[in-house]
Amino acid sequence: MIHQQFIFDLDSYLESKNNLINNELEKIIDAQSSNLISKAVRYSLMSGGKRLRPVLCIAAAEAVGGEEKCVIPAACAIEMIHTYSLIHDDLPAIDNDSLRRGKQTCHIAFDEATAILAGDALLTLSFQVLSSTDLNDHDAGTWLRVISLIAIAAGYKGMIEGQMRDISHENRQISIEKLEVMHSLKTGALIEASVKSGAILGNGSPEQIEQLQTYAKNIGLAFQITDDLLNVTGDPSVTGKEVGTDKARNKCTYPALLGISESEAYAKKLVNNALNAIELFDNKSDPLRAIAMYIIERKR
Amino acid sequence: MIHQQFIFDLDSYLESKNNLINNELEKIIDAQSSNLISKAVRYSLMSGGKRLRPVLCIAAAEAVGGEEKCVIPAACAIEMIHTYSLIHDDLPAIDNDSLRRGKQTCHIAFDEATAILAGDALLTLSFQVLSSTDLNDHDAGTWLRVISLIAIAAGYKGMIEGQMRDISHENRQISIEKLEVMHSLKTGALIEASVKSGAILGNGSPEQIEQLQTYAKNIGLAFQITDDLLNVTGDPSVTGKEVGTDKARNKCTYPALLGISESEAYAKKLVNNALNAIELFDNKSDPLRAIAMYIIERKR
Repeated sequence: MIHQQFIFDLDSYLESKNNLINNELEKIIDAQSSNLISKAVRYSLMSGGKRLRPVLCIAAAEAVGGEEKCVIPAACAIEMIHTYSLIHDDLPAIDNDSLRRGKQTCHIAFDEATAILAGDALLTLSFQVLSSTDLNDHDAGTWLRVISLIAIAAGYKGMIEGQMRDISHENRQISIEKLEVMHSLKTGALIEASVKSGAILGNGSPEQIEQLQTYAKNIGLAFQITDDLLNVTGDPSVTGKEVGTDKARNKCTYPALLGISESEAYAKKLVNNALNAIELFDNKSDPLRAIAMYIIERKR
Repeated sequence: MIHQQFIFDLDSYLESKNNLINNELEKIIDAQSSNLISKAVRYSLMSGGKRLRPVLCIAAAEAVGGEEKCVIPAACAIEMIHTYSLIHDDLPAIDNDSLRRGKQTCHIAFDEATAILAGDALLTLSFQVLSSTDLNDHDAGTWLRVISLIAIAAGYKGMIEGQMRDISHENRQISIEKLEVMHSLKTGALIEASVKSGAILGNGSPEQIEQLQTYAKNIGLAFQITDDLLNVTGDPSVTGKEVGTDKARNKCTYPALLGISESEAYAKKLVNNALNAIELFDNKSDPLRAIAMYIIERKR
């Protein structure tokens, strides 16, 4: 089906949610503390990420009629988990990247030991935040459910397994199916967890939660395809990342397997699937719709 | 005060609890999964650790009249957190150790990338275990409280800060006070969390929980002093660790600061403090008493 155009000011929405999330993250990492770990944590966490996952978490809650404030701990925790995974993936023993979001990666700006421990600290802090919420809006059982689903998504049958597969696939040609499983674990699992935890904390019905999961699965993959495309066609001054690194590493990517235009078409199809999954949702879902379209149009 | 001798078969107690914990950990790490991460996780987790922290967790619960089965998820989670911290501390960028518990460290047996991710997986899995318990024995709020206290103890104002201080103290002479703060963070925080979570899950009174925390603080430090002593006087075939490494690294330790016999006397004093803290507890605390004495008598 062809989706109708709708008017939604995504830039303002993203700006307002980003400000909110940045403020909340600032509070969490505690401006008072000046030890080296907290400096490294702050450096990586506050270095201008897109905040896609926490925005999705909030937007999913709002889509089912929930309130922003009810999901903030989950939104922040997921961003911290995402940031820890970037710090560790950038390490010399893994991807050995020196540039991230236009800045030196954590182990370059500090050192390797500090980067390892800062990643550990962020991961641990995310669970502290999830377990230390006041229970005005949700009962403890709901939070336990959210903690469990986030831990599973981030864990060794989710994101970590995806990263492991990514490493083992380097310098090898793999099938599109294997590439897809790898991405659905490496980036898809946490994006799904963002949307699902938002939907649960927004008190969505089981049916709504399922539809939102379908939405998330599709945009997660579309996001990854666009990431691969930006590594070929992107502008480093906009992406803040080195370009051409996948090819230099002989990494298996969508453009490498399918070519650029077929990859773009596939990403569009996935976004369409995502929009179909939530077509019965009312206009409180417009942010989710706009984000789905933004994901393939973004330049960074 | 001089403590009376009492008869308690600690060897049998430790053996039975170790078997229980090993069985539970086996179940958690899922014998069915054969991916590389789970192999590395199994390698490090099942390599014959003393299981001191989970035993303390169970013994603390029993000391206040609780049941073993009510604390198993916490006991296992804490052992997983302890193991992850060892895997990361052993990495080339941190302590660069090649031997642990008589076996190759994780990054030697596998590789550095796998060791980093296996540590991350264990840390994440620990919170999955803590949040996925059935709620027959405790309500969700009690589990949230336990998750929070464990995350704080393991985090960047606890264990991770201790490790960071340990690194920054290398090749420097520091005061005994600074050494003590470092150890109270690096090893003390998680030992305290073991005892405290056991006491909470065993339904101890606030007063009992406080007394058990004093017990834990004291044995935690005594444990570290003995660790330092074993690095000087230990037998590698018994400890499973290299000996003399602290001195070779010019590391600040209790024997280096106080000498061997004064360090031994200090450890004894701390154990006495621990025994005093729980002197009003009945004979269900005998395991805790025996563990306190074992901590300074151990040869590994």
